[in-house]
Amino acid sequence: MKALIHVTLKPDVLDPQGKAIQRATGSLGYEGIQSVRQGKLFEVELDAADESAARALLAELSEKLLSNPVIEDYEVVSLES
Amino acid sequence: MKALIHVTLKPDVLDPQGKAIQRATGSLGYEGIQSVRQGKLFEVELDAADESAARALLAELSEKLLSNPVIEDYEVVSLES
Amino acid sequence: MKALIHVTLKPDVLDPQGKAIQRATGSLGYEGIQSVRQGKLFEVELDAADESAARALLAELSEKLLSNPVIEDYEVVSLES
Amino acid sequence: MKALIHVTLKPDVLDPQGKAIQRATGSLGYEGIQSVRQGKLFEVELDAADESAARALLAELSEKLLSNPVIEDYEVVSLES
Repeated sequence: MKALIHVTLKPDVLDPQGKAIQRATGSLGYEGIQSVRQGKLFEVELDAADESAARALLAELSEKLLSNPVIEDYEVVSLES
Repeated sequence: MKALIHVTLKPDVLDPQGKAIQRATGSLGYEGIQSVRQGKLFEVELDAADESAARALLAELSEKLLSNPVIEDYEVVSLES
Repeated sequence: MKALIHVTLKPDVLDPQGKAIQRATGSLGYEGIQSVRQGKLFEVELDAADESAARALLAELSEKLLSNPVIEDYEVVSLES
Repeated sequence: MKALIHVTLKPDVLDPQGKAIQRATGSLGYEGIQSVRQGKLFEVELDAADESAARALLAELSEKLLSNPVIEDYEVVSLES
Protein backbone atom coordinates (compact mmCIF):
# COMPACT_ATOMS: atom_id res chain seq x y z
CA MET A 1 0.00 0.00 0.00
CA LYS A 2 1.01 3.58 -0.49
CA ALA A 3 0.25 6.34 1.97
CA LEU A 4 0.78 10.08 2.03
CA ILE A 5 1.14 11.81 5.38
CA HIS A 6 1.15 15.55 6.01
CA VAL A 7 2.95 16.92 9.07
CA THR A 8 2.22 20.57 9.78
CA LEU A 9 3.14 22.97 12.53
CA LYS A 10 0.21 23.57 14.86
CA PRO A 11 -1.62 26.79 13.91
CA ASP A 12 -0.24 28.75 16.87
CA VAL A 13 3.39 27.86 16.12
CA LEU A 14 5.22 30.49 14.10
CA ASP A 15 6.81 29.39 10.83
CA PRO A 16 9.55 31.93 10.10
CA GLN A 17 10.67 30.24 6.91
CA GLY A 18 7.19 30.10 5.48
CA LYS A 19 6.94 33.78 6.37
CA ALA A 20 10.24 34.42 4.57
CA ILE A 21 8.87 32.78 1.44
CA GLN A 22 5.72 34.90 1.64
CA ARG A 23 7.80 38.07 1.99
CA ALA A 24 10.04 37.02 -0.89
CA THR A 25 7.06 36.78 -3.23
CA GLY A 26 6.52 40.51 -2.93
CA SER A 27 10.12 41.28 -3.82
CA LEU A 28 9.75 39.09 -6.93
CA GLY A 29 6.66 41.00 -8.01
CA TYR A 30 4.14 38.24 -7.32
CA GLU A 31 1.02 39.93 -6.08
CA GLY A 32 -1.50 38.12 -3.99
CA ILE A 33 0.39 35.56 -1.91
CA GLN A 34 -1.13 36.13 1.55
CA SER A 35 0.60 33.45 3.55
CA VAL A 36 2.86 30.44 3.17
CA ARG A 37 3.37 27.74 5.75
CA GLN A 38 5.87 24.96 5.28
CA GLY A 39 5.27 21.43 6.47
CA LYS A 40 6.61 17.97 5.83
CA LEU A 41 5.30 15.36 3.46
CA PHE A 42 6.01 11.65 3.82
CA GLU A 43 5.41 9.04 1.13
CA VAL A 44 5.27 5.63 2.78
CA GLU A 45 5.12 2.19 1.21
CA LEU A 46 3.93 -0.46 3.57
CA ASP A 47 2.60 -3.98 3.83
CA ALA A 48 -0.38 -4.52 6.08
CA ALA A 49 -3.13 -7.09 6.38
CA ASP A 50 -5.90 -4.61 5.64
CA GLU A 51 -6.69 -0.90 5.68
CA SER A 52 -7.41 -0.90 9.36
CA ALA A 53 -4.03 -2.43 10.21
CA ALA A 54 -2.34 -0.02 7.82
CA ARG A 55 -3.96 2.98 9.49
CA ALA A 56 -2.94 1.79 12.94
CA LEU A 57 0.66 1.34 11.78
CA LEU A 58 0.71 4.75 10.09
CA ALA A 59 -0.66 6.43 13.21
CA GLU A 60 2.07 4.89 15.34
CA LEU A 61 4.75 5.79 12.77
CA SER A 62 3.46 9.37 12.57
CA GLU A 63 3.38 9.86 16.32
CA LYS A 64 6.71 8.27 17.08
CA LEU A 65 8.97 9.04 14.13
CA LEU A 66 7.43 11.60 11.81
CA SER A 67 6.12 14.33 14.07
CA ASN A 68 6.60 16.02 17.40
CA PRO A 69 3.03 15.99 18.78
CA VAL A 70 3.69 19.00 21.01
CA ILE A 71 4.24 21.35 18.09
CA GLU A 72 2.99 19.45 15.04
CA ASP A 73 -0.15 17.80 13.72
CA TYR A 74 -0.19 14.91 11.28
CA GLU A 75 -2.79 13.64 8.86
CA VAL A 76 -2.83 10.54 6.68
CA VAL A 77 -4.18 12.20 3.56
CA SER A 78 -4.30 9.16 1.30
CA LEU A 79 -3.95 5.39 1.48
CA GLU A 80 -4.08 3.24 -1.64
CA SER A 81 -3.63 -0.45 -2.24
CA MET B 1 -8.00 30.76 -2.13
CA LYS B 2 -6.09 28.01 -0.41
CA ALA B 3 -3.62 25.74 -2.13
CA LEU B 4 -1.57 22.75 -1.09
CA ILE B 5 1.68 22.05 -2.91
CA HIS B 6 3.83 18.94 -2.64
CA VAL B 7 7.55 19.18 -3.36
CA THR B 8 9.28 15.80 -3.64
CA LEU B 9 12.77 14.68 -4.53
CA LYS B 10 12.89 13.27 -8.04
CA PRO B 11 12.66 9.47 -7.96
CA ASP B 12 16.35 8.96 -8.79
CA VAL B 13 17.56 11.25 -5.99
CA LEU B 14 18.47 9.41 -2.78
CA ASP B 15 16.71 10.46 0.40
CA PRO B 16 18.98 9.37 3.26
CA GLN B 17 16.73 10.75 5.97
CA GLY B 18 13.67 8.98 4.63
CA LYS B 19 15.81 5.85 4.53
CA ALA B 20 16.82 6.44 8.16
CA ILE B 21 13.16 6.63 9.17
CA GLN B 22 12.43 3.40 7.32
CA ARG B 23 15.34 1.67 9.09
CA ALA B 24 14.23 3.02 12.46
CA THR B 25 10.81 1.43 12.08
CA GLY B 26 12.39 -2.00 12.23
CA SER B 27 14.25 -1.19 15.43
CA LEU B 28 10.95 -0.06 16.97
CA GLY B 29 9.29 -3.34 16.04
CA TYR B 30 7.02 -1.95 13.32
CA GLU B 31 6.82 -4.62 10.66
CA GLY B 32 5.92 -3.80 7.12
CA ILE B 33 7.24 -0.28 6.41
CA GLN B 34 8.95 -0.83 3.04
CA SER B 35 10.07 2.70 2.25
CA VAL B 36 9.75 6.27 3.45
CA ARG B 37 10.55 9.32 1.41
CA GLN B 38 10.40 12.81 2.88
CA GLY B 39 9.23 15.82 0.94
CA LYS B 40 8.00 19.31 1.63
CA LEU B 41 4.45 20.52 1.94
CA PHE B 42 3.40 24.12 1.43
CA GLU B 43 0.05 25.59 2.46
CA VAL B 44 -0.50 28.80 0.51
CA GLU B 45 -3.21 31.42 0.87
CA LEU B 46 -3.53 33.62 -2.13
CA ASP B 47 -5.74 36.13 -3.90
CA ALA B 48 -6.22 35.67 -7.62
CA ALA B 49 -8.81 36.70 -10.18
CA ASP B 50 -9.77 33.12 -11.02
CA GLU B 51 -8.50 29.57 -10.85
CA SER B 52 -6.44 29.94 -13.98
CA ALA B 53 -4.61 32.99 -12.60
CA ALA B 54 -4.13 31.20 -9.30
CA ARG B 55 -2.57 28.18 -11.00
CA ALA B 56 -0.21 30.36 -13.01
CA LEU B 57 0.90 32.17 -9.84
CA LEU B 58 1.36 28.91 -7.94
CA ALA B 59 3.43 27.43 -10.77
CA GLU B 60 5.75 30.42 -10.75
CA LEU B 61 5.99 30.37 -6.94
CA SER B 62 6.74 26.64 -6.97
CA GLU B 63 9.45 26.90 -9.61
CA LYS B 64 11.17 29.96 -8.21
CA LEU B 65 10.84 29.75 -4.44
CA LEU B 66 9.57 26.37 -3.33
CA SER B 67 11.59 23.84 -5.30
CA ASN B 68 14.87 23.23 -7.03
CA PRO B 69 13.70 21.93 -10.42
CA VAL B 70 16.97 20.04 -10.97
CA ILE B 71 16.40 17.67 -8.08
CA GLU B 72 12.76 18.16 -7.10
CA ASP B 73 9.27 17.89 -8.59
CA TYR B 74 6.29 19.90 -7.43
CA GLU B 75 2.56 19.36 -7.69
CA VAL B 76 -0.34 21.61 -6.75
CA VAL B 77 -2.47 18.93 -5.11
CA SER B 78 -5.44 21.08 -4.17
CA LEU B 79 -6.84 24.54 -4.80
CA GLU B 80 -9.99 25.74 -3.07
CA SER B 81 -11.83 29.01 -3.08
CA MET C 1 31.66 39.12 5.51
CA LYS C 2 30.66 35.51 5.93
CA ALA C 3 28.73 34.17 8.86
CA LEU C 4 27.61 30.75 10.00
CA ILE C 5 24.51 30.46 12.13
CA HIS C 6 23.26 27.37 13.95
CA VAL C 7 19.55 27.02 14.70
CA THR C 8 18.74 24.18 17.08
CA LEU C 9 15.60 22.95 18.76
CA LYS C 10 15.53 23.93 22.43
CA PRO C 11 16.73 21.04 24.61
CA ASP C 12 13.24 20.21 25.88
CA VAL C 13 11.74 19.97 22.38
CA LEU C 14 11.60 16.43 21.00
CA ASP C 15 13.31 15.80 17.68
CA PRO C 16 11.65 12.68 16.25
CA GLN C 17 13.71 12.69 13.08
CA GLY C 18 16.99 12.94 14.93
CA LYS C 19 15.73 10.06 17.05
CA ALA C 20 14.92 8.09 13.90
CA ILE C 21 18.48 8.58 12.65
CA GLN C 22 19.85 7.40 15.99
CA ARG C 23 17.65 4.30 15.86
CA ALA C 24 18.66 3.61 12.27
CA THR C 25 22.33 3.49 13.22
CA GLY C 26 21.71 0.39 15.30
CA SER C 27 19.97 -1.38 12.42
CA LEU C 28 23.00 -0.59 10.23
CA GLY C 29 25.35 -2.12 12.77
CA TYR C 30 26.95 1.14 13.93
CA GLU C 31 27.61 0.75 17.61
CA GLY C 32 27.96 3.71 19.87
CA ILE C 33 25.71 6.46 18.47
CA GLN C 34 23.91 7.63 21.63
CA SER C 35 21.85 10.49 20.27
CA VAL C 36 21.35 12.58 17.14
CA ARG C 37 19.62 15.92 17.01
CA GLN C 38 18.99 17.73 13.76
CA GLY C 39 19.17 21.47 13.41
CA LYS C 40 19.52 24.04 10.68
CA LEU C 41 22.66 25.70 9.41
CA PHE C 42 22.69 29.02 7.58
CA GLU C 43 25.63 30.39 5.60
CA VAL C 44 25.15 34.12 5.20
CA GLU C 45 27.13 36.60 3.12
CA LEU C 46 26.61 40.17 4.19
CA ASP C 47 27.94 43.69 3.92
CA ALA C 48 28.19 45.65 7.14
CA ALA C 49 30.21 48.64 8.35
CA ASP C 50 31.97 46.65 11.04
CA GLU C 51 31.68 43.52 13.15
CA SER C 52 29.32 45.13 15.61
CA ALA C 53 26.91 46.17 12.85
CA ALA C 54 27.18 42.72 11.31
CA ARG C 55 26.31 41.02 14.60
CA ALA C 56 23.30 43.27 15.11
CA LEU C 57 22.05 42.49 11.61
CA LEU C 58 22.62 38.75 12.06
CA ALA C 59 20.76 38.77 15.37
CA GLU C 60 17.75 40.44 13.77
CA LEU C 61 17.87 38.08 10.80
CA SER C 62 18.09 35.06 13.10
CA GLU C 63 15.20 36.13 15.28
CA LYS C 64 12.87 37.20 12.50
CA LEU C 65 13.56 34.88 9.58
CA LEU C 66 15.76 31.97 10.58
CA SER C 67 14.30 30.70 13.83
CA ASN C 68 11.15 30.41 15.87
CA PRO C 69 12.33 31.73 19.26
CA VAL C 70 9.62 29.79 21.10
CA ILE C 71 11.02 26.40 20.14
CA GLU C 72 14.48 27.14 18.75
CA ASP C 73 17.77 28.71 19.80
CA TYR C 74 20.23 30.32 17.43
CA GLU C 75 23.93 31.03 17.65
CA VAL C 76 26.23 32.92 15.30
CA VAL C 77 29.11 30.46 15.38
CA SER C 78 31.51 32.30 13.10
CA LEU C 79 31.90 35.67 11.43
CA GLU C 80 34.77 36.38 9.06
CA SER C 81 35.70 39.35 6.95
CA MET D 1 32.05 12.35 22.79
CA LYS D 2 30.10 15.12 21.13
CA ALA D 3 30.35 15.96 17.47
CA LEU D 4 28.89 18.64 15.23
CA ILE D 5 28.38 17.88 11.56
CA HIS D 6 27.47 20.34 8.83
CA VAL D 7 25.65 19.10 5.73
CA THR D 8 25.48 21.65 2.93
CA LEU D 9 24.20 21.60 -0.62
CA LYS D 10 27.09 21.43 -3.10
CA PRO D 11 27.93 24.90 -4.41
CA ASP D 12 26.36 24.28 -7.83
CA VAL D 13 23.03 23.12 -6.37
CA LEU D 14 20.42 25.86 -6.17
CA ASP D 15 18.88 26.56 -2.77
CA PRO D 16 15.52 28.22 -3.47
CA GLN D 17 14.60 28.54 0.18
CA GLY D 18 17.86 30.18 1.12
CA LYS D 19 17.23 32.52 -1.81
CA ALA D 20 13.73 33.23 -0.47
CA ILE D 21 15.20 34.20 2.89
CA GLN D 22 17.70 36.51 1.21
CA ARG D 23 14.91 38.16 -0.79
CA ALA D 24 12.77 38.52 2.32
CA THR D 25 15.49 40.49 4.09
CA GLY D 26 15.09 43.28 1.58
CA SER D 27 11.35 43.47 2.15
CA LEU D 28 11.99 43.74 5.90
CA GLY D 29 14.38 46.64 5.36
CA TYR D 30 17.57 44.79 6.25
CA GLU D 31 20.25 46.14 3.97
CA GLY D 32 23.35 44.17 3.18
CA ILE D 33 22.35 40.49 3.19
CA GLN D 34 23.98 39.27 -0.05
CA SER D 35 23.18 35.58 0.11
CA VAL D 36 21.73 32.93 2.40
CA ARG D 37 22.16 29.20 1.98
CA GLN D 38 20.44 26.72 4.23
CA GLY D 39 22.04 23.48 5.32
CA LYS D 40 21.58 20.89 8.02
CA LEU D 41 23.31 20.64 11.35
CA PHE D 42 23.61 17.42 13.32
CA GLU D 43 24.61 17.19 16.98
CA VAL D 44 25.77 13.65 17.69
CA GLU D 45 26.67 12.01 20.97
CA LEU D 46 28.71 8.87 20.57
CA ASP D 47 30.91 6.39 22.33
CA ALA D 48 34.12 5.40 20.60
CA ALA D 49 37.47 3.97 21.67
CA ASP D 50 39.40 7.04 20.52
CA GLU D 51 39.21 10.02 18.20
CA SER D 52 40.23 8.02 15.20
CA ALA D 53 37.45 5.48 15.74
CA ALA D 54 34.99 8.29 16.35
CA ARG D 55 35.92 10.01 13.10
CA ALA D 56 35.55 6.78 11.14
CA LEU D 57 32.10 6.21 12.64
CA LEU D 58 31.03 9.80 11.98
CA ALA D 59 32.18 9.57 8.36
CA GLU D 60 30.13 6.45 7.81
CA LEU D 61 27.11 7.96 9.55
CA SER D 62 27.41 11.13 7.47
CA GLU D 63 27.69 9.30 4.18
CA LYS D 64 24.95 6.77 4.82
CA LEU D 65 22.32 8.54 6.91
CA LEU D 66 22.94 12.27 7.10
CA SER D 67 23.71 13.34 3.56
CA ASN D 68 23.09 12.53 -0.08
CA PRO D 69 26.65 12.59 -1.46
CA VAL D 70 25.42 13.40 -4.97
CA ILE D 71 24.04 16.78 -4.00
CA GLU D 72 25.47 17.46 -0.54
CA ASP D 73 28.82 17.80 1.23
CA TYR D 74 29.39 17.05 4.87
CA GLU D 75 32.01 18.20 7.36
CA VAL D 76 32.64 17.14 10.94
CA VAL D 77 33.26 20.62 12.34
CA SER D 78 33.95 19.68 15.94
CA LEU D 79 34.61 16.60 18.05
CA GLU D 80 35.00 16.86 21.81
CA SER D 81 35.47 14.30 24.54
